[in-house]
Amino acid sequence: MIAPLSPVHLGPGAAVLAFDVGGTDTKATLVDTSGALLDTVRVPTPLSVDGTGDAVLAQVEALAARFRAAHPTIDIRAAGLIVPGLVDDESGIGVFSENIGWKNVPFRDLASERLGVPVYFTHDVRAAGAAEYTLGSAGQYSNVLVVVIGTGIASAIFVDGRPYSAHGYAGEIGHAVVDPGGVLCACGGHGCLEAIGSAGAISRLYRAGLGTADPVDNAIGAREVLERAQAGDLRAQKVWSDATDAIGLALAQSVALLAPEAIVIGGGLAQAGDALFGPVEKRMNSFLTFHRRPVLLPATVGENAGLVGAALGARRILTAEPTTEPTTAS
Amino acid sequence: MIAPLSPVHLGPGAAVLAFDVGGTDTKATLVDTSGALLDTVRVPTPLSVDGTGDAVLAQVEALAARFRAAHPTIDIRAAGLIVPGLVDDESGIGVFSENIGWKNVPFRDLASERLGVPVYFTHDVRAAGAAEYTLGSAGQYSNVLVVVIGTGIASAIFVDGRPYSAHGYAGEIGHAVVDPGGVLCACGGHGCLEAIGSAGAISRLYRAGLGTADPVDNAIGAREVLERAQAGDLRAQKVWSDATDAIGLALAQSVALLAPEAIVIGGGLAQAGDALFGPVEKRMNSFLTFHRRPVLLPATVGENAGLVGAALGARRILTAEPTTEPTTAS
Repeated sequence: MIAPLSPVHLGPGAAVLAFDVGGTDTKATLVDTSGALLDTVRVPTPLSVDGTGDAVLAQVEALAARFRAAHPTIDIRAAGLIVPGLVDDESGIGVFSENIGWKNVPFRDLASERLGVPVYFTHDVRAAGAAEYTLGSAGQYSNVLVVVIGTGIASAIFVDGRPYSAHGYAGEIGHAVVDPGGVLCACGGHGCLEAIGSAGAISRLYRAGLGTADPVDNAIGAREVLERAQAGDLRAQKVWSDATDAIGLALAQSVALLAPEAIVIGGGLAQAGDALFGPVEKRMNSFLTFHRRPVLLPATVGENAGLVGAALGARRILTAEPTTEPTTAS
Repeated sequence: MIAPLSPVHLGPGAAVLAFDVGGTDTKATLVDTSGALLDTVRVPTPLSVDGTGDAVLAQVEALAARFRAAHPTIDIRAAGLIVPGLVDDESGIGVFSENIGWKNVPFRDLASERLGVPVYFTHDVRAAGAAEYTLGSAGQYSNVLVVVIGTGIASAIFVDGRPYSAHGYAGEIGHAVVDPGGVLCACGGHGCLEAIGSAGAISRLYRAGLGTADPVDNAIGAREVLERAQAGDLRAQKVWSDATDAIGLALAQSVALLAPEAIVIGGGLAQAGDALFGPVEKRMNSFLTFHRRPVLLPATVGENAGLVGAALGARRILTAEPTTEPTTAS
């Protein structure tokens, strides 16, 4: 397991709010002018029953009011808002979230109206990737892939130093097929990387192999599967090696196409450290011949990488304000 | 089969030379101020026995002298030079060519010295891709993948309207693994797309299935394999469908990661038209769920796309000359 992370610090700049709307919980923080995450809270995310995202926006507004009341002397200049699903950074629209239930919500502009400050808006994994790229160990490279492996798998791509989103569709390495005709994925496809290599898949595939005899086993997560594998459980070893094989293959395919100098791996599964990075790197390299071998790096910003990326984006639109589109920095 | 192409025309601009150094032949042309390919020649490429690329450079110089002697009234202002292998556009260096035999040759600067004009230098497939992107049907899109399928398979990537090369390593879709542990590839890997889906592989895999009984069969190319498949030859059908399946899978993987709006397919195999595009598109789409589906387009610039891309690049460095790096436009 890798060492605990030191608290993240963004450095001096404007005070901003950051909101990370997740499928289960929403995290929010106030970043002060020193760059510290001064006050971080976590609340359940409300479902958007009518597809308008209004419940989410109302919650963001209430959280902002709470931060302002608690810190009346701090001049909050901007906010960063990140959400899951399909997100069009350029237009500021949350195109689709199956989990939370919205469709085509112009989050950036609506949040800016409600909060009274300019809002930076992007996808949660792209924000986390930007935090890693800006503050983490991959900042020295121009071409970087940041892969976040948790319940699902997604990535943020940096091309010649710039984030690449393709209207929100890029970086879906979790839904690149590594096993044609393989196990069903939540997206409706078969044999996607996410259906084999994510923490969710590791837990699910291991439990499926156990049958239904022991209801206690329903709580077995990827961490427990790894612990059982290390203790000699052959079924757990198979699930874990299938997962690392799939991740290594998908990374090798990305290397052939994009040739990143560095690949950063974050998300819950990255906490497995060498037990993940060792077999993934070995498998990836087994497919590479003349290709440029990337360095594999663990994410260093930690569990608040999304919030940090949102806050960095909020600060960036303030410094970019003299341009024609003050709220569309990307 | 698709319709014959009309002659390519670059439009008005400076008169430039273009050289496309291939593994077998070198093509060269003089583009006049109207943008026509005025005088196109093809000569065998000399091997670089000492790794210096001198034989290639001497041939380029001799061809330039021939063009100048034949067209004494034309003011040749720049040249474009493209080569296969691993090419670092930024530094102007031909890093490696296994076929022709050079290593780390600063082609751009050496060619510029020999020719007495600024030289644009890049990889052959990136040049062909740029020609397709500039003059072909994909120019309306920002994010485009141009895949060239011939003896080998490579691609040129356009990200937010700009070519992406990653010091020459990007776009190697031919050496992305689509069948882990599969058939040996020329690169030393196993199950690379190129080892299954290229015209070379189609011919080779079909002939391997025939055994050695009939030496006449050694001349069977991908076109003949397709003709035999269409005439009911089951083995030819299997080789062809394995190839289109592999191409469709690799394209779907590229779509998950890069989400191009359009994928242009060129090279010799694209001459198969619907027999290629039909099954490839069907297979690609079978792997896509929420992903953005790209349009598949046949290349339209034709067999001289590399030369055209080289000439376009040569013209571009002339218009970019006021900048600090007159010979490094990319």
